Amino acid sequence: MSAAAQPPGPLALIAGGGTYPADLARILAARGRPLFVAALDGVADPAAFGQTEVAIYRLGQLGRVLDEFRRRGIADLVLLGGLPRPSFGALMPEASTLKYLPYFAKAFQGGDDHLLGAVVRFFEGQGFRVLGPHEIAPELTAPQGPLGKRRASATQQALIARGFALLSALSPFDVGQAAILADHRVIAIEAAEGTDAAIRRVADLAAAGRLKIGKGDGILVKAPKDSQDLRVDMPAIGPDTLRHAAEAGLSGIAVRAGRVLVGDRQRLGALADQLGLFVEGVA
Amino acid sequence: MSAAAQPPGPLALIAGGGTYPADLARILAARGRPLFVAALDGVADPAAFGQTEVAIYRLGQLGRVLDEFRRRGIADLVLLGGLPRPSFGALMPEASTLKYLPYFAKAFQGGDDHLLGAVVRFFEGQGFRVLGPHEIAPELTAPQGPLGKRRASATQQALIARGFALLSALSPFDVGQAAILADHRVIAIEAAEGTDAAIRRVADLAAAGRLKIGKGDGILVKAPKDSQDLRVDMPAIGPDTLRHAAEAGLSGIAVRAGRVLVGDRQRLGALADQLGLFVEGVA
Repeated sequence: MSAAAQPPGPLALIAGGGTYPADLARILAARGRPLFVAALDGVADPAAFGQTEVAIYRLGQLGRVLDEFRRRGIADLVLLGGLPRPSFGALMPEASTLKYLPYFAKAFQGGDDHLLGAVVRFFEGQGFRVLGPHEIAPELTAPQGPLGKRRASATQQALIARGFALLSALSPFDVGQAAILADHRVIAIEAAEGTDAAIRRVADLAAAGRLKIGKGDGILVKAPKDSQDLRVDMPAIGPDTLRHAAEAGLSGIAVRAGRVLVGDRQRLGALADQLGLFVEGVA
Repeated sequence: MSAAAQPPGPLALIAGGGTYPADLARILAARGRPLFVAALDGVADPAAFGQTEVAIYRLGQLGRVLDEFRRRGIADLVLLGGLPRPSFGALMPEASTLKYLPYFAKAFQGGDDHLLGAVVRFFEGQGFRVLGPHEIAPELTAPQGPLGKRRASATQQALIARGFALLSALSPFDVGQAAILADHRVIAIEAAEGTDAAIRRVADLAAAGRLKIGKGDGILVKAPKDSQDLRVDMPAIGPDTLRHAAEAGLSGIAVRAGRVLVGDRQRLGALADQLGLFVEGVA
């Protein structure tokens, strides 16, 4: 985690939505590491990056982005932040980007994971190194241990271990970033719907009397799949995850330490305390 | 499947909701096997059993039910049909049942599977033999092969195999009776919400443009968990399952042959044809 372990030279951040890109910029600014932010038009908030240099691009301006990176002598990239389904307008390629189209047309034929892998391979093929946010700023990931004041009890730890074992068993099938356990059993497994929808489902089942979540019972576990490329597709929890978990009557959240983004650890720990949840990183 | 393979003597059917109990009664009547139906009050339809002898009981009359079985010289039981969350009134024990309460009070402390196991052990402790519907009437389960005219293609068969492998991997965690696969990946895994809710979730995600189910793509797989006691907790598909699957844009359903209830095979096969789905039992 020392500055000496960071690769030298300027870094580019291709920034999507959410607070994580700005959190990363702040960490790098504190370290004095030069950073250039390519903010995705309509997705990233260019005002959130403080003194860090920002330019706004839409996806169809990929060629122009690459030219700018090269002009600045940037060799290392990090991609971070949410990317909603892009509009047709955002994708419309300008002249600088046309030559890359056949590559992406081919990549689009696979599944989601396939496409994200293709993005990494594209940048690598263009001579850049793509680093994961956890490599650049491990401070943005869950530490080992609790983020706030609460800790999982021995009973909760046993349920957490079972949850992580479940996610590992699912991993060969390229599914299952999160699961919810309560009442001595697995009550929800996330697939295409996303973590928030899985939490909401549990809240609905409990409200309908179809399951019982006792005090100190329900927990959410989240971890990357074994095959997941953390450079482009890192699992994350944030303030909304905690709020939804509390609303569903869960008692806490356990994530894989160092492999799940949490953003500003102090901010999330304070929210966990406020909501009465434990939030823990588990090795 | 021959009549000679059936155990001799009269049989009791403790009947819950849905059409399967009446389907079973019809099969046994055709075979000439004596049957007495204990229909759960407000849940089973006592008029659905044709010429078969029926009496109505609520759960709190368990002691009276046992007495009646004994009076009739019944040694073998089968439990079949849906059981909604019972009302307080239905549970209220009458004098004949009070002595069994401590047993069930203890059993209620475990999870659902635990309780169902306790029901089987209770009847066994009372000297009855509890048989699974698949043992009494394998005609009610999925056969090996298609129920209707459509069959899974080679591509669909590969997705089905992946789905069953996923369910097997989940089985040690006592979860995962069903999963939905489409677009080369697993898009929904059933936990506490039930199969219908998982199908509806997929329909909602597709309607919201969050996933794409191409023609001939989406499939539902369903199988018992390895640990599941088929005598009290057999997975089932029925007309509603098929209708919801068709509404979600799925192309078919594959279930474990002999281990998933389908009720009247011809009726379900005809509905599959009408809806344009394949419905297959897989060994």
